[in-house]
Amino acid sequence: MASETPNFVVIFADDLGYGDLGVYGHPTIRTPNLDRMATEGIRFTQFYAAAPVCTPSRAALLTGRLPIRSGMTSDVARVLFPDSANGLPAEEITIAEALKDQGYASVAIGKWHLGHHPEFLPHNNGFDSYFGIPYSNDMDQVVESADPRQPFWEPRIEYWNVPLMRDAEVVERPADQRTITRRYTEEAIAFIRENRDEPFFVYLAHSLPHVPLFTSEAFAGRSARGLYGDVIEEIDWSTGQVIDTLRELEIEDETLVIFMSDNGPWLLFDTHGGSAGLLRDGKGSTWDGGMRVPAIAWWPGRIPAGRVETDVASTLDVFPTVLALAGAEVPTDRIIDGNNLLPVLEGEANPHAEAPFFFYRGQRLYAVRKGPWKAHFMTESAYKADTEYMEQDPPLLINLDADPSEQYDVAHEHPEIIAELTAEVAEHRASLVAGPDQLADRTARPLD
Amino acid sequence: MASETPNFVVIFADDLGYGDLGVYGHPTIRTPNLDRMATEGIRFTQFYAAAPVCTPSRAALLTGRLPIRSGMTSDVARVLFPDSANGLPAEEITIAEALKDQGYASVAIGKWHLGHHPEFLPHNNGFDSYFGIPYSNDMDQVVESADPRQPFWEPRIEYWNVPLMRDAEVVERPADQRTITRRYTEEAIAFIRENRDEPFFVYLAHSLPHVPLFTSEAFAGRSARGLYGDVIEEIDWSTGQVIDTLRELEIEDETLVIFMSDNGPWLLFDTHGGSAGLLRDGKGSTWDGGMRVPAIAWWPGRIPAGRVETDVASTLDVFPTVLALAGAEVPTDRIIDGNNLLPVLEGEANPHAEAPFFFYRGQRLYAVRKGPWKAHFMTESAYKADTEYMEQDPPLLINLDADPSEQYDVAHEHPEIIAELTAEVAEHRASLVAGPDQLADRTARPLD
Repeated sequence: MASETPNFVVIFADDLGYGDLGVYGHPTIRTPNLDRMATEGIRFTQFYAAAPVCTPSRAALLTGRLPIRSGMTSDVARVLFPDSANGLPAEEITIAEALKDQGYASVAIGKWHLGHHPEFLPHNNGFDSYFGIPYSNDMDQVVESADPRQPFWEPRIEYWNVPLMRDAEVVERPADQRTITRRYTEEAIAFIRENRDEPFFVYLAHSLPHVPLFTSEAFAGRSARGLYGDVIEEIDWSTGQVIDTLRELEIEDETLVIFMSDNGPWLLFDTHGGSAGLLRDGKGSTWDGGMRVPAIAWWPGRIPAGRVETDVASTLDVFPTVLALAGAEVPTDRIIDGNNLLPVLEGEANPHAEAPFFFYRGQRLYAVRKGPWKAHFMTESAYKADTEYMEQDPPLLINLDADPSEQYDVAHEHPEIIAELTAEVAEHRASLVAGPDQLADRTARPLD
Repeated sequence: MASETPNFVVIFADDLGYGDLGVYGHPTIRTPNLDRMATEGIRFTQFYAAAPVCTPSRAALLTGRLPIRSGMTSDVARVLFPDSANGLPAEEITIAEALKDQGYASVAIGKWHLGHHPEFLPHNNGFDSYFGIPYSNDMDQVVESADPRQPFWEPRIEYWNVPLMRDAEVVERPADQRTITRRYTEEAIAFIRENRDEPFFVYLAHSLPHVPLFTSEAFAGRSARGLYGDVIEEIDWSTGQVIDTLRELEIEDETLVIFMSDNGPWLLFDTHGGSAGLLRDGKGSTWDGGMRVPAIAWWPGRIPAGRVETDVASTLDVFPTVLALAGAEVPTDRIIDGNNLLPVLEGEANPHAEAPFFFYRGQRLYAVRKGPWKAHFMTESAYKADTEYMEQDPPLLINLDADPSEQYDVAHEHPEIIAELTAEVAEHRASLVAGPDQLADRTARPLD
């Protein structure tokens, strides 16, 4: 029996690459829980995060809006830092805020990164409670090193003075990152048990596998892939624990679980970063490796088992999908960029398969995808030290269905597609009101 | 009930890349039959073809021996051509020959490429019958073109005067490659039906997705990946037909089916070539993309469902595994390079996980792998026009379990591993007797 207002568990990994799960083809990272989740649910193969870096990607997931609209993306600062003054503007509506009106209990667990000053924290964005770190786990670095990457190769928790918060209080500093995935999992399970009889929303945003990498003793040295694999295998375990709990409580038929990543792998960190599989480039880039991510949805009561969805979808779709399922009105006073994926979850073709998807890096629109086609107006590699910026005029045109590694520019064969995509961009730009840059002001006093 | 002498179906795709199946992570090629075969059987993630090109890879599969021993690899000619004089030496023992003594019926279907003159054809190598093309489907090109790749982009069967043979007779020329996968499949199914009551061996060596690409009408335009995807989806269908037939005849519990590829994708052919997924380089190279291939084994009566095997194995292992299962003696008058994988198929750890695997290109040993480690003594990219040859002294050392894309040389951290692998190579070389080069002589008259 699926209740009319289902529960939602949104699991968001940090810097997990497209190629890093067994079910997405990784040869040595073992992810039996996520693989099974895919076998029992739906796996997306062309699913995008809405930005190639953390803060804008999270803003987009929780609001269903391109981060350019909320001002949560910037050409001055790529993400929020401990000295950033701002965060997600109060007028933005998060999933948690929309669900609160429908009587949902909600919790944010893990990495927030939408503002660490009180007014921006989860409890001021619709969540009943919060447990996690307010920004990336590599910020607040206190160890000094001539080689900036050296502390990452043999990380110790005391190298980073990262705060662990419960609601608005710092409860541990430095956060013990070795046990953090386990503790996030325990928090999620406790919350689910407590709220089993009412509709709930769990936002479980793992702070790993973002570097520095840490894992609990139970997972240390377990993966042939090394420490990075250990971390993924612990996140896989965590996902299995959540699903096992839903089954034990017999609420699996009324709970939608979605697993995603916030952006592609951080290739700069060698084997401590992940793999984009066959995709080009990684985190920070608008090549697909920077933004196409694993995405698996599971809901035994509603999602037919074993479907592989190859049409384009994105984290922007989570907001309207969740709101529709909860019976909440999608706000009409603002543009929501995502689409309701409910038909897809129920086994139908994606009615929004031809909707354009825009690739922003900072405040600039680098590329657009529509159906199989992606036009690159600018390209910039984030791979290692190669950050060359190129304007592409005429734009590069890629058929991503046929050329997933973005190797072959076919612009000269399809001037009509270039024209169509250019028109989509023009239409998008004409209606776009960019929000004031929320990331630029870095004059705040960091958290004590 | 598994009979004491099971049946064997060995399916060998041509130039299929590591990343080209759904279950190996391809986003748009749909392979439900192979995916299900993996779910019901065992999928290998570090399985190697014994050479990065066709002829030596096939010689190795059928004999269990490195092609340097049989002389079926050369620095003069990479493979056999229509003007080649020789083929697999008569003194080599093929799987079919070994099984003949055990009372097996056998058929070779598809691409042979171990010699097209009568003495080298399948019926002189242990097979009862043969139906297929004797060498690659791009040989015998008759169309003239200033751009050598042009005929491949819009291939027509009459551009290549490839012979289709039944036993020693040419029965069609040019082979109608549009229907060839379907006809191979029909041949295999008819053979299985005819021989259902006796032990049998089917060697089904698809001549595709080697370029030029052809597909039957039923698959034309079906895949979002384009023509290459259509071809793979037809091979997937073919595999499903074979498995459905085994089930229908109720002999699935006494039949081992193995699906593999002969080498990595031919990257030179853009979207008409496949993808090595996250692996480096492709066909022709001793980087893993040239030799690591998809490999799925299925045998409901004996292989536990859903296993993923991450230890190293190779096509060299097929010969000793099949012989052991058939109760045939492995020849003791020669070196057999493969290992019996039966324990792995039955769900145990691979007892040969630490056996060295040697990467030859032509007659030169480029690299060796042992456990997670691969030492490159020479490297040569086959990617596009970049065929730069490099001696690596000291050798590059890669931890392939941790670094599947071969990006990070860790030789300086592990001199003891370099020493160990160098010693393995020295031991191998000391015992090696290279067979006379069977590919060098190209003075023969082509088939009429």
